[in-house]
Amino acid sequence: MYFWCVVKLSIIGTGNVAFHLAKAFSQAQGVKLQFVAGRDSEKLRTFEGFTTTLDLNKELEETFYSDVILIAVSDASIAAVSQKLIESKALIVHTSGSAAIEILDQNKHCGVFYPLQSFSKEKELVYKEIPFLIEAKLQGDLMILKDLTKSLSASYFTVNSKDRAALHLAAVFSNNFTNHILTEAKQLCNDHKVSFELLKPLMLETVQKAFSIGPENSQTGPAKRKDTPTINKQLSALKSAEQKELYALLTQAIQNHYER
Amino acid sequence: MYFWCVVKLSIIGTGNVAFHLAKAFSQAQGVKLQFVAGRDSEKLRTFEGFTTTLDLNKELEETFYSDVILIAVSDASIAAVSQKLIESKALIVHTSGSAAIEILDQNKHCGVFYPLQSFSKEKELVYKEIPFLIEAKLQGDLMILKDLTKSLSASYFTVNSKDRAALHLAAVFSNNFTNHILTEAKQLCNDHKVSFELLKPLMLETVQKAFSIGPENSQTGPAKRKDTPTINKQLSALKSAEQKELYALLTQAIQNHYER
Repeated sequence: MYFWCVVKLSIIGTGNVAFHLAKAFSQAQGVKLQFVAGRDSEKLRTFEGFTTTLDLNKELEETFYSDVILIAVSDASIAAVSQKLIESKALIVHTSGSAAIEILDQNKHCGVFYPLQSFSKEKELVYKEIPFLIEAKLQGDLMILKDLTKSLSASYFTVNSKDRAALHLAAVFSNNFTNHILTEAKQLCNDHKVSFELLKPLMLETVQKAFSIGPENSQTGPAKRKDTPTINKQLSALKSAEQKELYALLTQAIQNHYER
Repeated sequence: MYFWCVVKLSIIGTGNVAFHLAKAFSQAQGVKLQFVAGRDSEKLRTFEGFTTTLDLNKELEETFYSDVILIAVSDASIAAVSQKLIESKALIVHTSGSAAIEILDQNKHCGVFYPLQSFSKEKELVYKEIPFLIEAKLQGDLMILKDLTKSLSASYFTVNSKDRAALHLAAVFSNNFTNHILTEAKQLCNDHKVSFELLKPLMLETVQKAFSIGPENSQTGPAKRKDTPTINKQLSALKSAEQKELYALLTQAIQNHYER
């Protein structure tokens, strides 16, 4: 791939998103990862293999030399961090799913670079399968964000803040909530000393079906078919109050949904 | 593959499991699908391409010639159907996840043949990726059930009724509940006219991670990191009372889980 010039990119933040983006951009063509800055010196140490690390508690004079600065911190800290970058001429971009672009309004060149994926330090990512939701007020800035996704071999979708917040909320349901349900399912398997691994084909099929024929056409099970004896048997087999509550609410939700 | 003889198999039931097993066994090597019997003549018609269909409301004299009879009906009907088969010398097997083998106690040769997978008529199945949980009281009967899974190129696991019920309960969590959550996620996308398809890589990664590093090590999101401003923003963005209730309960469940 040919890039007309190298983008000098820096990252502020030391969480999972910062870690994976720093790792990926440190190896990406067409990008020079200039520095990663953070407040926590312990966490910063894990970034030393990728680039220079800087203490965010001090002045960040080095930002002067960056073309793009990615703010990959918690939503609550974005405003405070961007405040430190008011003098910067760089394109200032946050990586949040739910924060609006307006949070960066004090920066003329601002944008959003949100990877719609779940990041854990332990797990490698396949970037070509990650959709990045990007947004910028100026066309030239949007071009730079597109080039950044290309340098990662990822795909991009230009999405405004309102739609991104909706997708982020849907992602909380899809990823966070289903992951917790899988946590409870694994606990049930462990309690009975049966292999959680046996459920993997079922889960992969669940996802494949949800995106081929639609989840609304894939619902099966005791709740959908109103099999009250099985529902009662399963409710009484559950030991933890939380599992009972989850079971009852989701069973009710499924029944309400298909009664409508 | 070599089979010492052909197993003469019949199926009672006209639901999704009966449909997929009838289709698969009608094409399987080493198995002769003798008949499918059901009470609903309309539903029975969809089985006509696979084999002879019989009216379950009448006497089933043809069962005399079967080696194995699969009862693929709702749990509540298994006992009544098996009652009709008391005179049969065949191996009588049900396909339920939660019913114990004892429900077939009146038949000397009895067993369980439970595919741990979700069946929808619209979606083709890849049998080699389906684990069948099998159970029988006699070793010879168990051998026949193993041969049946081999004729489908599927894998089998010998599991007793108690452990199978636990796996079925975990499957209700994994499949039924996550599918409903995906239904709500799709609804959120539709409400905001954003593409549900964008969530597919996230969902596939969610499942891959749950079975590689474990769901307990994969939890991320506002609930896990106790990001109250985002939680409140998302709660107020939800319009339906049911979505709010699901969001609140699952958020609370995640927070309780990681506080323990």
